[in-house]
Amino acid sequence: MKKDALNIYDIAEMAKVSIATVSRVVNGSEKVSEATRKKVLAVIDEVGYTPNVFAQGLGLKTMHTVGILVPTIADHYMASAVAYLEKELMKYGYDCILSCSGFEAEGKLAKTDMLLSKHIDSLIFVGSTYAGDGSDESVTDYIRNAAKRVPVFIINGDINGENVYATVSGDEEAVYEAAKQLIAGGRRNIIFITDSRSYSSNQKRKGYERAMKEAGLDTENGTVYVENDFHAVRDALTELGGTYDGVISANDNIAVGVVKYAVSKGLSIPEDIEIIGYNNSMLAMASTPEITSIDNHTADVCRDTVERIMHVLDEDGDTPAQKIAVKCDLIPRETTVRR
Amino acid sequence: MKKDALNIYDIAEMAKVSIATVSRVVNGSEKVSEATRKKVLAVIDEVGYTPNVFAQGLGLKTMHTVGILVPTIADHYMASAVAYLEKELMKYGYDCILSCSGFEAEGKLAKTDMLLSKHIDSLIFVGSTYAGDGSDESVTDYIRNAAKRVPVFIINGDINGENVYATVSGDEEAVYEAAKQLIAGGRRNIIFITDSRSYSSNQKRKGYERAMKEAGLDTENGTVYVENDFHAVRDALTELGGTYDGVISANDNIAVGVVKYAVSKGLSIPEDIEIIGYNNSMLAMASTPEITSIDNHTADVCRDTVERIMHVLDEDGDTPAQKIAVKCDLIPRETTVRR
Repeated sequence: MKKDALNIYDIAEMAKVSIATVSRVVNGSEKVSEATRKKVLAVIDEVGYTPNVFAQGLGLKTMHTVGILVPTIADHYMASAVAYLEKELMKYGYDCILSCSGFEAEGKLAKTDMLLSKHIDSLIFVGSTYAGDGSDESVTDYIRNAAKRVPVFIINGDINGENVYATVSGDEEAVYEAAKQLIAGGRRNIIFITDSRSYSSNQKRKGYERAMKEAGLDTENGTVYVENDFHAVRDALTELGGTYDGVISANDNIAVGVVKYAVSKGLSIPEDIEIIGYNNSMLAMASTPEITSIDNHTADVCRDTVERIMHVLDEDGDTPAQKIAVKCDLIPRETTVRR
Repeated sequence: MKKDALNIYDIAEMAKVSIATVSRVVNGSEKVSEATRKKVLAVIDEVGYTPNVFAQGLGLKTMHTVGILVPTIADHYMASAVAYLEKELMKYGYDCILSCSGFEAEGKLAKTDMLLSKHIDSLIFVGSTYAGDGSDESVTDYIRNAAKRVPVFIINGDINGENVYATVSGDEEAVYEAAKQLIAGGRRNIIFITDSRSYSSNQKRKGYERAMKEAGLDTENGTVYVENDFHAVRDALTELGGTYDGVISANDNIAVGVVKYAVSKGLSIPEDIEIIGYNNSMLAMASTPEITSIDNHTADVCRDTVERIMHVLDEDGDTPAQKIAVKCDLIPRETTVRR
């Protein structure tokens, strides 16, 4: 793409329509009024230059393909989100293509560019890692740049920008409520275990600390950072040597490691120690005992995301909400006491 | 693509070179001799028509992208195979794009076509479902057709065809050996549980039946077909009401369900019942007790597959072996008796 290429913003501004409308026109949506379509095409024609994405779109031919980016597909939460997205997209006759970026900035940028080169109609980022830790907005510029070419959706990440649509999880509130329940049940030595300093992980930690502080409990050494590996989690807790009666984990993988720790120490679950996971994934159910987990409703979020994509791409009228917050629920199983 | 489009076979035949060499020429490999390159390009020039894949390739520009097809990414074995493939491809500067086809013929065909349209250099099919059940060769025609456009690799599937490269797992032998071990340990009521009638599943069943028959044991009701869901497996075994002292599962998901069945019946693992999974996936380790599982060496197979792809695409000289058989190993954990 030439450096001076006009982007979807410029076209929208010159045609005095929304970005979504330009997107619909170049995607050949039949729901745009003929007058609007002509106005937008006239601007594109007038400026005499069209970036790649328009060159493709101007044939009024969509590829009906959505790009999906995940940090790693080996993570069960990511894999199941992709499976849901694929299923929902298929209902609308859309294919999807997936790429894995890793957790580093370089990979995120490279894979975003690669997917954009594959003639996609929209791009979905899955996971809070894409939103950085919230301390430096420039680390998410690559997402706003991508949004100049296609509508961009973030699942479980809080990013602002034109043509950027985000779904944020109520992580802080969910962990706050879970910790409050453990405290109400008499637990005092509660820790929060995570493998990440992502925005989402930080939100969970804040929820944990808020509940603990409200109850007058200490959180100074309450957050434990571990490697995302069952046995590494077990060994890290064993090495710490503390006595815990409640553990909230940032994901189910870690919670499985906590179960292994408790079993290896001969602790009774949930009598001696209560364990809460996060994501309500297959791993929570694969464990024996089955793990109580916070459900962030991945299936609903994915269905909702695809509906909003279709709204942006195909439908006339108002654009969907740019940010949607999802309430999480605690799904009680065998690692917590029924109260 | 026009019906009468010349394909890579025709070009190879007319230029009197291998398909691999044509592939290298159109992918712009620098390792093809100048004389060979000229000969192949002369044929393409002479026939005056180039199918899509050539039109792209003739710019002597590879997109450095490999397509990967899996039936479902929600399955942990598939997800980890994709993660390995992506990592290996990245070492060679190749991106990959993934699509999920489901298990039905229609989806397999449609997604294969979709990936071929994305300017890929090679296509990898992951999973034995792509090889059918071996009873009707025509069900795999879509794979041989894809191989007319790019080199095709099948992981864990046995398919013959030009430009088709397969890795087959020693499933029959692995289950035979596992069953023999259980029998040698005194187990008599051994069953095989599977959720599929794929080629791979049938091979596993044959290994089980061979070991049982050699020991003079009955296999008439020995194979149990279940849904791939922990609780469905548990409930199916409970409903069957038999008494089993050994269970071999076609994958680790099923083995997790068998553990849940044994725990719900109050059976001691491994004293009362020994349980063996397949794939040696994260699920085998997530379970408590951790599950003994047959390792088909996914990481090695994926690395080997990518090396062969690079050999076909980039290197001069002999093409790699069309079929490679991988020996599987039993990884003992807590669901079998140490002998």
